[in-house]
Amino acid sequence: MTGVVADLGEFGLIRAITARFPGGGELLIGPGDDAALLAAPDGRVVATTDLLLEGRHFRRDYSSGYDVGRKAAAQNLSDVVAMGARPTGLLLGLAAPGDLPVAWVLRLADGLRDECAEVGAVIAGGDVSSADRVILAITALGDLGGAEPVRRSGARPGDRVVLAGRLGWAQAGLELLGVGADGPTGLLDAHRRPEPPYAAGRALAAAGASAMCDVSDGLLADVGHIATASGVRVELRSAAFDIAEPLRAAAERLAADPLRWVLTGGDDNAFVACLPPSCAPPAGTRLIGEITEGSGVLVDGTPYEGAQGWDHYRHP
Amino acid sequence: MTGVVADLGEFGLIRAITARFPGGGELLIGPGDDAALLAAPDGRVVATTDLLLEGRHFRRDYSSGYDVGRKAAAQNLSDVVAMGARPTGLLLGLAAPGDLPVAWVLRLADGLRDECAEVGAVIAGGDVSSADRVILAITALGDLGGAEPVRRSGARPGDRVVLAGRLGWAQAGLELLGVGADGPTGLLDAHRRPEPPYAAGRALAAAGASAMCDVSDGLLADVGHIATASGVRVELRSAAFDIAEPLRAAAERLAADPLRWVLTGGDDNAFVACLPPSCAPPAGTRLIGEITEGSGVLVDGTPYEGAQGWDHYRHP
Repeated sequence: MTGVVADLGEFGLIRAITARFPGGGELLIGPGDDAALLAAPDGRVVATTDLLLEGRHFRRDYSSGYDVGRKAAAQNLSDVVAMGARPTGLLLGLAAPGDLPVAWVLRLADGLRDECAEVGAVIAGGDVSSADRVILAITALGDLGGAEPVRRSGARPGDRVVLAGRLGWAQAGLELLGVGADGPTGLLDAHRRPEPPYAAGRALAAAGASAMCDVSDGLLADVGHIATASGVRVELRSAAFDIAEPLRAAAERLAADPLRWVLTGGDDNAFVACLPPSCAPPAGTRLIGEITEGSGVLVDGTPYEGAQGWDHYRHP
Repeated sequence: MTGVVADLGEFGLIRAITARFPGGGELLIGPGDDAALLAAPDGRVVATTDLLLEGRHFRRDYSSGYDVGRKAAAQNLSDVVAMGARPTGLLLGLAAPGDLPVAWVLRLADGLRDECAEVGAVIAGGDVSSADRVILAITALGDLGGAEPVRRSGARPGDRVVLAGRLGWAQAGLELLGVGADGPTGLLDAHRRPEPPYAAGRALAAAGASAMCDVSDGLLADVGHIATASGVRVELRSAAFDIAEPLRAAAERLAADPLRWVLTGGDDNAFVACLPPSCAPPAGTRLIGEITEGSGVLVDGTPYEGAQGWDHYRHP
């Protein structure tokens, strides 16, 4: 479809977007009524919401519409998985400039749809408005299927800290894009489109994780949330991290420290969990540390300098 | 609390906001984890989302933070009620400029909380970011309590069209604010803070409404949605509307047509429902027309000129 969104108007745009979305799954009433209706077979519903703002969370010259859709869905779906739940549905609030190409919006919709399909979730409804930049507000819902939620507060001394997914890739990619570098491709794509290891996250919950969160603010910041919520200390071992070759190459190019990317880079949407001693780490996960008595986060026995994670008012 | 939000930082702001929100109700896990958890006793969950953008949906020189909070919650809660459901929880996505007074945000939170309290809902979680203008993304969830959802598609010829709530007030108030007028106060407040007749909306569902929606785009546009979804014609009688004295006074002052406000003004969040002949209209509702065979919307037997409701790309 050619043209810009102002040509379609609000209701034409809504029709064009919703035509991209299949029904099925838990969706009982989809877009077009006052509200959507989804099955919630557990009798409880997990719910999370995130704003993604053009110029702050993504740039249209760095990422395609499709990339932004995948990323926007991924960061919400990973929050649902980090609670130990199965994502069921997603709501989309979209504000778009009138001169935005319709094709960009439809690819955004495709990206949202395809990321949801990775976990069997569907797009249930949304809202469209206009703004001078693209604004996305995503809400994801999920079902616990009878399991107890995995909170941040359940870690206990003696638990092992286990990681699923890659870290530092998105941050390295963002820094490469910032200097106009065009490779290594894997890193640029990692910024554009995180690939949360949903299956491993679900496996960590099923294995009996005592605490879990997705890594969106940076590993140290996110395990710091677990330390605070659980009243424990998180001790990480830097040698446990595999610094992948693309990260080493990019670090050399940018004269950066790849371990810093791993420990503080956000937006990879990996999962970090704490496993009691009796629980076996699932395949595809990596032991990166232990929970001990105390507070805060240590790396190789000492606090890590200058890494507090992302704060929207500290990085204006 | 004095100061601006940049002084608090993202996490300080989140703490200050969430301290305003009580738990209770359906809330099992509130703010502070990857996602919230709410009870969904029906086994299905109603979900709706809306964006509210400063400069487009509200102005800080027209409305206080408290007003904006009430309005943002009201327009989502009324969508849940229009489905025949009881609102249970609300998620808040907020982007705020660094120089926004903290007091404004806390009053916003108070407004959200107090509007939720009107229907027994709680604020379950959210997300905070920064932007150059205030952006709100609200998601509301609700529970059907074993009832069937009231859709837009259920109207049948012979049904009566029934209204709960006021119409035209918010639009009149907005136009008065636009010319710097400071009264009648009831109209300005109606723009700032709709008062959806939640109890009457719930009563319409309980009375057996075949179709219902909340009036947010304007009555003719919204009953038009019912006409289209149900494959019927909506016939309204203009004499059925009570043009309240403040509307008459404002219309005189602005040389406007008060009936046009009633028929096309948005943002009052009234409820319009269709009732089969066997269903008695609940107290506090008004008969305004009938459903007949055909299509479209007629007023006194003819199409109403020049009233298509709000389109975000037609009113840039």
